[in-house]
Amino acid sequence: MGQSSPLYRTAIEELGSVFDRIDDAEVERAVAAIAEAKSTVVFGGGRERLQIMGFAMRLYHMGVPVAVEGDMTTPPVGPGDLFLVTVGPGEISTALALIGVAREAGAKVLVITAQPEGRAPKLADQVLHLPAQTMADDHGPARSSVLPMGSLYEGALFVLFEVMILKLRDRLGATPDAMRARHTNLE
Amino acid sequence: MGQSSPLYRTAIEELGSVFDRIDDAEVERAVAAIAEAKSTVVFGGGRERLQIMGFAMRLYHMGVPVAVEGDMTTPPVGPGDLFLVTVGPGEISTALALIGVAREAGAKVLVITAQPEGRAPKLADQVLHLPAQTMADDHGPARSSVLPMGSLYEGALFVLFEVMILKLRDRLGATPDAMRARHTNLE
Amino acid sequence: MGQSSPLYRTAIEELGSVFDRIDDAEVERAVAAIAEAKSTVVFGGGRERLQIMGFAMRLYHMGVPVAVEGDMTTPPVGPGDLFLVTVGPGEISTALALIGVAREAGAKVLVITAQPEGRAPKLADQVLHLPAQTMADDHGPARSSVLPMGSLYEGALFVLFEVMILKLRDRLGATPDAMRARHTNLE
Amino acid sequence: MGQSSPLYRTAIEELGSVFDRIDDAEVERAVAAIAEAKSTVVFGGGRERLQIMGFAMRLYHMGVPVAVEGDMTTPPVGPGDLFLVTVGPGEISTALALIGVAREAGAKVLVITAQPEGRAPKLADQVLHLPAQTMADDHGPARSSVLPMGSLYEGALFVLFEVMILKLRDRLGATPDAMRARHTNLE
Repeated sequence: MGQSSPLYRTAIEELGSVFDRIDDAEVERAVAAIAEAKSTVVFGGGRERLQIMGFAMRLYHMGVPVAVEGDMTTPPVGPGDLFLVTVGPGEISTALALIGVAREAGAKVLVITAQPEGRAPKLADQVLHLPAQTMADDHGPARSSVLPMGSLYEGALFVLFEVMILKLRDRLGATPDAMRARHTNLE
Repeated sequence: MGQSSPLYRTAIEELGSVFDRIDDAEVERAVAAIAEAKSTVVFGGGRERLQIMGFAMRLYHMGVPVAVEGDMTTPPVGPGDLFLVTVGPGEISTALALIGVAREAGAKVLVITAQPEGRAPKLADQVLHLPAQTMADDHGPARSSVLPMGSLYEGALFVLFEVMILKLRDRLGATPDAMRARHTNLE
Repeated sequence: MGQSSPLYRTAIEELGSVFDRIDDAEVERAVAAIAEAKSTVVFGGGRERLQIMGFAMRLYHMGVPVAVEGDMTTPPVGPGDLFLVTVGPGEISTALALIGVAREAGAKVLVITAQPEGRAPKLADQVLHLPAQTMADDHGPARSSVLPMGSLYEGALFVLFEVMILKLRDRLGATPDAMRARHTNLE
Repeated sequence: MGQSSPLYRTAIEELGSVFDRIDDAEVERAVAAIAEAKSTVVFGGGRERLQIMGFAMRLYHMGVPVAVEGDMTTPPVGPGDLFLVTVGPGEISTALALIGVAREAGAKVLVITAQPEGRAPKLADQVLHLPAQTMADDHGPARSSVLPMGSLYEGALFVLFEVMILKLRDRLGATPDAMRARHTNLE
């Protein structure tokens, strides 16, 4: 086996350092919001969308009522429902637009962000601060990661969602067999 | 208002002529298969995929259990379920692969196609013949449409699915208000 | 062959009647806008999105620089580019948000709609009026189609886009062979 | 700030341990294959698809010709092109089908997998072994990760792709400003 590049280790350590700074109580409150929602719809832009889509699949595997914004079978949201949004840099136009719709319809809005002072989290009922570099601070003196653009935030989303799955799995009593049974065979 | 191009009329007439040749009994059997399935998963390639996705949204609006292959929340298929596939030209590699999986899992397979002698419909439990030009006969002497490639088939899919929705709506007693209530507000 | 249902004919005739009312000069101007753009990005919500995605594929087949909003490889828009949006009912929140972004960036905005007095077309540089029922007038005395919700508009989009493809094909000199050569084999 | 859960640290350490076992020479060969390809098309199933889509966006940001299987603007593959596939468990039906198409068309096939003896990598021209738990070994005595199903593999894909981006960025001389300039503003 060839000598491994130090880049893997650097990327992993950067991911780890994000979670030294996270407030686990905020994560627990996010887990509770999902567990208590009648139904959850997830949204994000660009590569953040991919990570929250992956989270939606595992929620589905656990039997949690969930949908991805834009899918053919996505329901409306209203009172009792949760609109779960990731907006690392604190604002994108489509997130602001949809948060407005969700709020007006009476749904609860939970925003995950690296910029808790941004416009999207300011409109939310609940905020989960994921303290990682995004495109809001990926250049100039604020730059902190070897990874480009919002990659550190996106990788941290992956880890965050996996831990939320483990917390939800315990809370909901979802067994590995039940999760596998919901995994599609059409692939 | 400017004088309208004859192209609209030609396209509309070509679409109409497809349905002079369809066997409505096959359409009724397809409607029954969907109404009787525990759950339906839809699939298609390229632009056919778009049309069957649109059908899935209306099935969802009517309260029919349905999912689109590849979505995060798509369940496995098994006995009692329906795998509904459009393969205009009679064969694409991914359709053959997934039909094999669905059959082995005990699901019913219904193939919509313009080429009922193709490999995909030959593997199906049920076939709906939609007699329109596809990429299997869009060049040379077989060419019959002013529209390019498989466009006539794809437009005919749209009309077919709308009529199937009307037939299903009556069968299931889905009201316009109930359908609107399921339409997402997140857009 | 069973006796065909009158529903096919009704749906086809409704589609045809939309094009008795369209202004072909507006369609020609839309075709010119696409032909002259450095790059075109398309957008729509729900089932309208599916139809404009299908249009994007044919534009790609003809060698026109085009992308679908939300795809991984979609470029930014700016001066010289076209943001092409379908908003049948005249307004959805995400369309308004993205039109704002495109305008501020200096791109040209072309809105296709059934409600030319709506907020989205009011923000556009150019409007194409497609006079068909949408969810803005699918209930009460305004109701005019046997098809549910915005289906008539969506089917009319399909026909409109096919005719625009034929007009563009002539204008650009795209041959059937060149179009087939760009069709993906990965399906 | 609340006391952090040990789950973050466990997940991060598991990700790190995957890269203690990777052969960096295989990663360098994969980077070279992408840099040398006329065009690259990416594919994966389920949550793996999401990670390789994210990789495609960064390749696009660097100016590498790339497309995602199933997108409207995806070209065919042929000689000189690369079909880049992730199949963690070594086999899914659609991957086998598409690899067959790509090979027959003369494209190079590169498979990333945790199961290098699987059927998909056996059909590839080049294999990148990512030694992490997938659904092929997520239960019984082979189980090695606290994460469910194929999550460890999927998270490792994220890190792998980020390191490949850094390697490619140096090789291609892509600057941060050039990458940001290709980032879409339509979000």
